[in-house]
Formats: sequence, structure tokens, C-alpha cells
Amino acid sequence: MKTDMSKQTAQQPPETWSRTMILRVDPQVDEGRHPVKRIVNEDVLVSADIVSDGHDIPAAEVLYGPEGEDEVAVRMTFLGNDLYQALFTPDRMGVWTYRVRAWIDQFATWQELFERRVKGGSPEAELKSELQEGASILKKSLGRAEAEDRKRLQDYIDAFEAGEVNRALEGEVQALAALYDTREGATESDVRRALVERPLARTSAWYEFFPRSVGPDHEHGTLDDAADMLPYVKEMGFDIVYLPPIHPIGRSHRKGKDNAPVAAEGEPGSPWAIGNEDGGHKTVHPELGGIEAFDRFMERARELDLEVALDLAYQCAPDHPYTKEHPEWFRQRPDGSIRYAENPPKKYQDIYPINFEGDNWEALWLELRDVVEFWAKRGVRTFRVDNPHTKPLPFWAWCFSTLRESYPDLIFLAEAFTRPKLMYALGKVGFSQSYTYFTWRYNKQEFQDYLTELFHTDVYNYYRPSFWPNTPDILPPYLDNKPTFQSRLILASTLSASYGIYGPAFELMASDIHPAREEYRDNEKYEIKDWDLDAPHSLKPLITRINTIRRENSALHHNRNLQFHDVDNDELIAYSKRDGDNLILVVVNFDPHYTQSSFVQLPLAELGLEPHQPYELEDLIDGARYYWHGPRNYLELDPHKFPAHVFKVHREVGREQDHDTFV
Amino acid sequence: MKTDMSKQTAQQPPETWSRTMILRVDPQVDEGRHPVKRIVNEDVLVSADIVSDGHDIPAAEVLYGPEGEDEVAVRMTFLGNDLYQALFTPDRMGVWTYRVRAWIDQFATWQELFERRVKGGSPEAELKSELQEGASILKKSLGRAEAEDRKRLQDYIDAFEAGEVNRALEGEVQALAALYDTREGATESDVRRALVERPLARTSAWYEFFPRSVGPDHEHGTLDDAADMLPYVKEMGFDIVYLPPIHPIGRSHRKGKDNAPVAAEGEPGSPWAIGNEDGGHKTVHPELGGIEAFDRFMERARELDLEVALDLAYQCAPDHPYTKEHPEWFRQRPDGSIRYAENPPKKYQDIYPINFEGDNWEALWLELRDVVEFWAKRGVRTFRVDNPHTKPLPFWAWCFSTLRESYPDLIFLAEAFTRPKLMYALGKVGFSQSYTYFTWRYNKQEFQDYLTELFHTDVYNYYRPSFWPNTPDILPPYLDNKPTFQSRLILASTLSASYGIYGPAFELMASDIHPAREEYRDNEKYEIKDWDLDAPHSLKPLITRINTIRRENSALHHNRNLQFHDVDNDELIAYSKRDGDNLILVVVNFDPHYTQSSFVQLPLAELGLEPHQPYELEDLIDGARYYWHGPRNYLELDPHKFPAHVFKVHREVGREQDHDTFV
Repeated sequence: MKTDMSKQTAQQPPETWSRTMILRVDPQVDEGRHPVKRIVNEDVLVSADIVSDGHDIPAAEVLYGPEGEDEVAVRMTFLGNDLYQALFTPDRMGVWTYRVRAWIDQFATWQELFERRVKGGSPEAELKSELQEGASILKKSLGRAEAEDRKRLQDYIDAFEAGEVNRALEGEVQALAALYDTREGATESDVRRALVERPLARTSAWYEFFPRSVGPDHEHGTLDDAADMLPYVKEMGFDIVYLPPIHPIGRSHRKGKDNAPVAAEGEPGSPWAIGNEDGGHKTVHPELGGIEAFDRFMERARELDLEVALDLAYQCAPDHPYTKEHPEWFRQRPDGSIRYAENPPKKYQDIYPINFEGDNWEALWLELRDVVEFWAKRGVRTFRVDNPHTKPLPFWAWCFSTLRESYPDLIFLAEAFTRPKLMYALGKVGFSQSYTYFTWRYNKQEFQDYLTELFHTDVYNYYRPSFWPNTPDILPPYLDNKPTFQSRLILASTLSASYGIYGPAFELMASDIHPAREEYRDNEKYEIKDWDLDAPHSLKPLITRINTIRRENSALHHNRNLQFHDVDNDELIAYSKRDGDNLILVVVNFDPHYTQSSFVQLPLAELGLEPHQPYELEDLIDGARYYWHGPRNYLELDPHKFPAHVFKVHREVGREQDHDTFV
Repeated sequence: MKTDMSKQTAQQPPETWSRTMILRVDPQVDEGRHPVKRIVNEDVLVSADIVSDGHDIPAAEVLYGPEGEDEVAVRMTFLGNDLYQALFTPDRMGVWTYRVRAWIDQFATWQELFERRVKGGSPEAELKSELQEGASILKKSLGRAEAEDRKRLQDYIDAFEAGEVNRALEGEVQALAALYDTREGATESDVRRALVERPLARTSAWYEFFPRSVGPDHEHGTLDDAADMLPYVKEMGFDIVYLPPIHPIGRSHRKGKDNAPVAAEGEPGSPWAIGNEDGGHKTVHPELGGIEAFDRFMERARELDLEVALDLAYQCAPDHPYTKEHPEWFRQRPDGSIRYAENPPKKYQDIYPINFEGDNWEALWLELRDVVEFWAKRGVRTFRVDNPHTKPLPFWAWCFSTLRESYPDLIFLAEAFTRPKLMYALGKVGFSQSYTYFTWRYNKQEFQDYLTELFHTDVYNYYRPSFWPNTPDILPPYLDNKPTFQSRLILASTLSASYGIYGPAFELMASDIHPAREEYRDNEKYEIKDWDLDAPHSLKPLITRINTIRRENSALHHNRNLQFHDVDNDELIAYSKRDGDNLILVVVNFDPHYTQSSFVQLPLAELGLEPHQPYELEDLIDGARYYWHGPRNYLELDPHKFPAHVFKVHREVGREQDHDTFV
């Protein structure tokens, strides 16, 4: 057997080890491979399972700070069942790090036993002897304390050595010992990261429109015309105005009206077919007024305090300068020509996809990142990214993380409608917000399941939804009547802290659907539209109202506070969001034809409502007031009047009305 | 702005990256910090979430093998929703490693598009051109294939180059391409480990007894007397015979009968107070016959094919040689004396706990490991470890992993009754089996919840329960009547693949409980008992029967196959275990007083039963046969007859009876 053992004998005990073991740290994304997402001043609640052998008392702290700077420590609270918790609040943008450190709290362990000795009537000699041990633990901390505290510690040490039993049980000595604990034998978790963005990354209302459609008399509009549109957008209360690509549009294989394969003379083409001899992704389409008009547009937006979002569509028209300068950035067919986009047997000859892994890919990546930087230097901080799921995930991770070192306020919205794990992976690699399956959630159960997944699971840590009732690419068939336009707007804007609409199509309730696809017939992507912004049926007043409600009610700025409530009618959905005193209760009728009624069941205590006091519901849409009592109350919704209630709940009845009525 | 950019410009694209991203790998324990546990020939089913950009088709494989040896690859199957899966079956003991590798399957991606081109009626010129690309992908694999396969690949390449469309759609070429795929741009997960133990680590029946109580005429028994007891244990069908500590017992502060603080002259003391001037953990108590008697005992056990388990209790009596040779291995009081065990105000002056972090701890750790090795060299491979939760977790991790390099067949059972996360942590650091909360689960709901947590969650990967109805330390108050002894035995032995009893107290239904604690009055720990093994009320026949049933029915060797079934009576619990054709259905009555009856609802399809065919239930305890039909059938259990059914379910009725009846 001796030979067997030679191997073991060589295996000496570990050089360092700890009696405490950190089993799990939350939050974290994929074992820490990606950061969790927060906004400035949003708490990071860190929890950890920590065990140690025996009955000694572990102590733990979270060490956190902006990446690369000194860490700050915050002591974790013991919650029972080996669970510890602490929170920190990042107060500026950028990457923050955090980790957990745990060790045996020698003094607390000693003090707990000592207290039991005292209470159990241990003899004085034993207590005095144990006090010596307590003093020796305190002495180890002496060197860490300064001035006043050092004096206080020494005072306790003297008292212990003099055998003063009662001094050893004081809370102050435990606090001092904890503060200057030597943390002997500590263990540490891996470092976790949090990407801290500005509040707009979580809470935002987007308005998308085509600048070329807002020119006078059906002419091709410019960015100066688009600048004149900004007050209209601002009046409605949006935060972000988002423009489809503003670059030169390819001429070769240009698409015509309603996606016709060949454009007629004078047709403008799709803005997503980027690039021609005038330039590519760093050029403004001459017909939009060029870069000077863009700068004027930005200036106007700044005056109005409107954020501008550009479209980042990494693909090229066949005449894009890249195709000549860098043919190696595209895939070639065996005959040497550049591959156009295909979904065999369909061909998209107006688009050349970029090959992220071809020859000279490093220069390509740098150039693509430089596109963002080009616009960032002109003041753009927000980008809607076209089809990000068809570009490599490591590209986004690298591109965003390096850009954010210089521009921590960059916001990226992922336009991806693909498989759920890939949607989530885009969130993990750094997209601030993402398009969602909102359009394809039809009934109460589907909404409840989806929102619960988004806000009340781990998904919250890496994926921030933006709910869009329509986009230039998507017109769902149900969006063909006023109550549904209204209810979808209410759902999007109150379920999610971020939402957006494609206008003026939305507010004018455009609903002319393509016969074969869930999109607009005669799509604005291929032609210039002439919208009547003053049409009497416009939903502009409603949109203005809901954006005002969003701004005035902080409950709607959050996502994690969403709570669904029981309603005995499947056509009705009820939910609330609460932020301190601010409590918003929303009930929406999915049925566009008939009045639906039900009792709504509220968990009063959780919502901060008194079980035996009446409370007042102020409908922020029509100004009506209701007086409810107890958890179960009746309501009805006539979709022809308005398909939703957006209630502000007042805990005390009889307050003055403080808003204009709307409907 | 230029200065800002200097930082970024320095940030070049990553040197290596992959278009595939592995989001999650299962199974794993605490992010791979601990191994998952399996037994030899038990499958490791590996699953992974894998995404890549766009619509290219990822491929994935699991690379596995015994640690330090060449890895074998097994291709993963795509199950939809970005989920991939493969299994491997470790065929020998030791640490195995596994990891996931993923990449874009270039040929499958090409072939899928090519097939769509063909079906979509693409022109011949386009197909011929694309075939060139297909050929160029295949060419890259040519160098990896040998002989026959290389010829077949070349054959396809020639066919592609000749424009033979149909050859490109064959399954064989996809299989060849997959087999010799260059795996360009692959990404790999972290390495995960599996600790593979022998089957006894999962499936075992333990019998504990005190050797000193089996001597003749109330004299102190020896290990030769204990050897004479082995046929009795073997007859009952146990796999493992476990002895409390067999070492010299401390004399100083020796405990007397019923835990009296002072032993009377001639009292034997507790075997867990280890060590006196005769020796310590590597010595056999002279009154047990010394090491020679031990070797004879081992020899007898080997003849009977009984596994022997010793007790590993790392603590010392005050007269243990360590206390003189290595006082630094213990904690000192301020006066320099060694600290005895305390739970203030209680004192345990007969026990000195070991200090694992004192001076000279490395020598201590090596010595403690050497204790295991000492007995391993004498043929012991199984240890029940006393109070492992009061020793540092890293000690166990180090001790077990280094010992298992030479003795991969070592089995350790953790005797820990502490907080759940610490119980589980002991499993994670390497205990093969663990004591559980079985004793403190009282009703159906509690059992169902607990077993679901143990077998149908992540816990399965690191914690193997051993269910004990009694131990020398634990006599639950409900164990005071025959039906409950019977039902607890059936529950322990059929719910869990491992179980054990402390005998002869169990089979003789000793139930004289201590007035203040859930343990035996006049505990055998402090005195020599004289058991009447031939008592007519002995449960030996029942135990023999249940161990036979366990051996003959492979369904009971597994844990993960446990399934509970609906019963409309809270006093009855019904569950089944299935292994292929072997299906065992158990119904237990918790009520020791009254007959309970109910309908039992079975999911026929899941159990492999025909919905419209009768099936036969053979009660393996009393031999009775029942003919059931459909999912819902009536039964009743009279606890005074027998409180449980242990049915073997026969899918065809009318078979010959193939077991002896028992009751």
C-alpha cells in the first residue's frame, strides 16, 4: 500500500482556506460573465448564502465601487437561514463592481457565549477568565482604530481586564469590534459587475417618425422640416425622438412603393438601404439637408430638451463606399461578386450584409465602432440598433463596453424579434433596452406570464423591455379600431417604464394592413407620406395625457413594482405600480366591442391601504372619482367611452382635484 | 473630444471570439466550484443553452473523460429553443470532467440554405455556383478524415464540383461533414467535474450496533463477539454494518449510566469520548480485543460480503495521547488549560474539541487524514462521520479529494443535523451520503415537499440522503407502537435508496424515551445492553423481507424516479418508483390506530400501464394480489394488520407467484 500513499503524502493541506464559505451571490448574470443592469441611484440589493462550520457567527460585507477605484464596504445583515443581505446605490454612470467578503466574527461569537455564561450563572472566576479572552480579541483591532475610537476600545479592554462583566455585554463594544474587525480568515466571492446607466435607459417614451414625410406639400422633407416637427413631439410629452436612418440611400436595386423590386424614377427608396456615392454611415442624405441640417436639428432638440436617437443599421446598399473600399468586409459568392442578403429562395439584392469574420475584420470592427463615435461627437447619445441579432454578440460586447468608457451615457435599443434566449443574450452583452413580444401578447394570461418573467425573475437584471404597439415593420391585425389603439397605448405606457410609438401612423390610427403580412400596406419605408397632424380623430390629446401621467407619477418610472390583481373577468386586466406614496392602479378592457365589468380584488396591506378606511380613486384620464372600501370593488369599462381606467389611488378621501380632466 | 478617444483607440477588438455563446451548462454545483455526484454507470445528462447570431446552425459537443486523461467527444442533440443535450456514462470511479464546445456548423448551414434553393427553384447556374462553396467547406475537413472516410468525402467533393445537386442533399454527406468538422471559431464552457462513486454510495442499507453489547452474559463484548453477530445482520439483508467508535475510551470525566456526569467504577463510558493512555484514533479498545480482533472481524465481514463502516469522530477525551503530544491542536483557556466542549452554560468535560486553525494545523490535518488512511489500509472503505458540521468545510474537501486519489471507493456518511444550507454544503464538499430531516417529517405534505426538494431539484446533484428511523442519539416520540415502527421502516427503505437503523433497538422496538429529550432513556452510549435477538416481537422478519424486496427490485435502487400519487386521504401517502419494467408502488398509512381507505390515482401512461387493460398488484409483504383497472382504484390499510402496501405492479395479470409470502 505504501506506493499508493506517495501521491497523497505529497498533497499538503491548502495554503489558505477559510472557515466561511460563500455559496451564492445575487444578483449576477450567467455566473458573472455579464454585468447586471441598473440606473443611477437604483439600488443593488446584494444577497449571499454564507455558511461556516459549528456555531460561530459569520460576518459579511459587500465591497463595491466604480470599477478601478477604491472599494467601499457595507456590512451585510443576517436574515436567518444562512442568508445575508446589503444594498448599495451607485451614484454615477459606468461599470461598478461588487463582491462579498465573509469571515468569522470572533468578538460577536465570544460575546454571545459570554452572555450565555452570565445568564447561566457561571462562576465569577470563569467569567473573569473569559473576559481576558474577550480583551485579547479586542486588542487585535486596536491598531485599526484611530483617535477617539481607539480610546474607547482601550477603555473596554481595560474594563474587561478589570473583570467588569456588564461592560462586555454592551452594544457599543460589539459595534466597535465590528467596525475594526481584523477580518481574519476572510473569504471573498468573485467580483461581479453592474452596468450603471442614466435613468433614461430604464424610463423613456419614444416617438419615431420619418423626417422626409414632414416636408411641405408632399415634398421630400429635410431635417429642418423635421426640426419644425419637434415641438409637436415635445407637446405630446415624449422623451426621445427617433429617426430612421438619415444616410444616403442606395440607387442600385432600389425598392419602389410597397416594396416593389424596382423603384420608379424619383422614388426615394428605403432608408435602411444605406450608402451611395454621396457617402455611407457617416454622411447625411443630401435630400435631408446634409450634416448642417442635422446639426441644426440637434440644436433644436437640445433647446426642447428632447433626446435624439439615430438608427444604427450595419448593412450596406450595393453602392455604399465600403463595397468598393473594402470588398473583404462582405461575403463573396464563388464567382467573386459580393453576396446580397438572401432568405432562399428570396433575394434582397438592395442589401449587402456585413461579414464580421472575414479578412481584415479588425479594421471593420473599428470602423463600425467609429460610426457610433462619429455621431456621438455630434451629440447623439441614443441609438436604435437594427437587427442586432444578425451580428456577432462579441462585437456588441466589445463595441459598447469600449465606447462607454468615454461615453457612459450611451443608450442602445435592440430591434430584435427572434428567439427568447437570443433576445436575452443581447441584453446581457450590453443593450440598454430591447424590443419585445408585446405585440404578440393577446390576452390577460399571456400578459401576466410575460411581465412576470420580465420583471419578477432574473431577467430583470439584464433585459429592459420597450413596448411598441406599432413600428414601421409591424402593424398587428387587431390594431384596426379606436378602443384597441387606446388600450394598447395604455398597456404599453403603463406596464413598461419604456415604450414607444411609430408616428404619426399611430396617433392617426393608420390601420391599412398589408394583405399578406403583419405590416402596413404602402409602407412609409418606401415612400413619402403626408400626414394630417391636425386630424380631429388624432390620439394626440390622449398621448399627451398619458405621457403627463407618466411624468407626474414616479410609480410608472419603475418596472419591478408591477403587481397584477385578481379580476373575475378574462377580458379585464388589473395591475398596479407603487413607489412610496405614489400608487397607480390600471384596469384595461381587452374587448373593443362590449362593456365589461367585474369586481377587482386588491391586497390592501401590500398597497399601503387601510382595511377599514375608504380610499379614493382618481381616474387620471377622465377626472372621475370613485370611493372604494375594502379589498373587493366593482367597476365597468365601456370601450366606446374609454377602454381603460388609469387610477391614482389616494389613501385619504376628499382631496382637491389637482389635474385637468382629459376625456 | 479627441482626448476622450485615445483611451478607446487603444482598445482593439478581442484577439479571439466566437459567434456562438454558451449561456448555461447543466448539471453543475455552485458555478462548478464543486463536483456533481454520480455512481458508476449512472448517466450524466449534460444540457446547454447555446445561441449564435443570425440563422446559422450551431453545433455542440460534450467533451468528457476521467480527470487528467484524454477527452472523448459526444455530439449534442438540438432540442429546440436554443437547447442542446447529450449524455455520457462514467464507467469507473474517480473524478470525471466534462465541458461543452460549440461552433457554427458551416456545412449544415450551407446545406440547409442549399436545400431551400433547390426547393425554391433557384436557377441551375446559381445551384452550381453554390455547390462550389459546399465543396470548399468539405475540403477543409479532408485532412481530418482517414482512409475510407477520406475517400468518401473526396467523392462528394468531386460530385459537388461536377454540379450534382442531389448528392448535396444526402444525409451521409452531412454526417461525414459533422464527423470531421473543423470546429472553426469554437467556444468552450468552463470545465465541470463529476465525482463518480461506487453504487453503494447511492444504494445501501445500514445496520448500526454496539459491539460491546453483544458479548455473552452481559459481559463487555469483543469484536470477536461482534463478528458472531454478523450472520444475524447478513440474514436481515443489510449491506453495511456500522460500528460506533472502537477506540480506547477516556477515563477522565467519563460519563456514567444515562449520561451521569461521573461514571461509577466499572462503567464503560461513551465510545465517542475517544482516547486514553492505550491510544487514540488508530487504536482498538483493548476490551474489544485489540487490533487482532478487529482484523478477524473484517475477515468475517468479507466472507459474508458485508461492508464495514467505522465511526470517524474527530474529538478527544482528556486522556487522548494528542492532548499531551499536541496541546496546540486544541483551544486553550486563558489559564493555559485545554478547553473542553461547551454549550454555555452546559459543559462537556469529557470531550476536547479539536482546533482546526491553531498553531501547527497543517500537521493536524495530515494526522487526521492519516487516521482514515490507517483504517483504509486495514480494509475499511466506509466511514460514518460524527458531527462533520463542526469541522471546517475546506478540511473535508481537501481530506476527501486527496484520499480518493488512492482510494476512489471510499464512502463517507455525514452525521449532521444542522441548518439546511450547511447540510447541503457538506454534500458539496464530498460526503457521499448524509443524514437528513427524515425523523422530523411527520405527514404526507411534509414528505412530499422534502422528497421533491431532495430528488427533483438541483439538490440531487450533490446531496444523497440516508433515512434513519432511529439512531443512538434520536428516538422520536412517535416511535412507540408497532404500526409506526413498521411504517417508518417502509418509508425509510422505499423512499430513499439508502437507509439505516440502529439495532437491535429498532427491531426489538425499544421505545423507552428520555423524559426531557428525543432520545433513549438509559442510552446504550453509556452502558452495555443485553438484547434478546430472538424475542418473538422482533421485526427481524419484516426487515429481512424489505431488504430482499429492495435487492430484487431495481426501481428501489434509484432516487430520481420517485413519483408521488394522489390519494384522497391525508393519512395515506402513495408513491412509486420505476426502473424500466420494474415498477414498485407503495402506500403507507400514517395513522397507527385506525384503518384508512381511499382511492389512489395513478398516471397510467407515465407508469407504462395500458389505460384499458387490467394490471396486477402483488403485495410483496403479504403476497396478496389485487387486480386493478384504470387510473383510479380503491384500497384500505388496517395498521394492526400492516400499515403499508409494497406492491410490485405486473403489467399482465395471471402470472405465477414468484416470492414467498411474508405476513
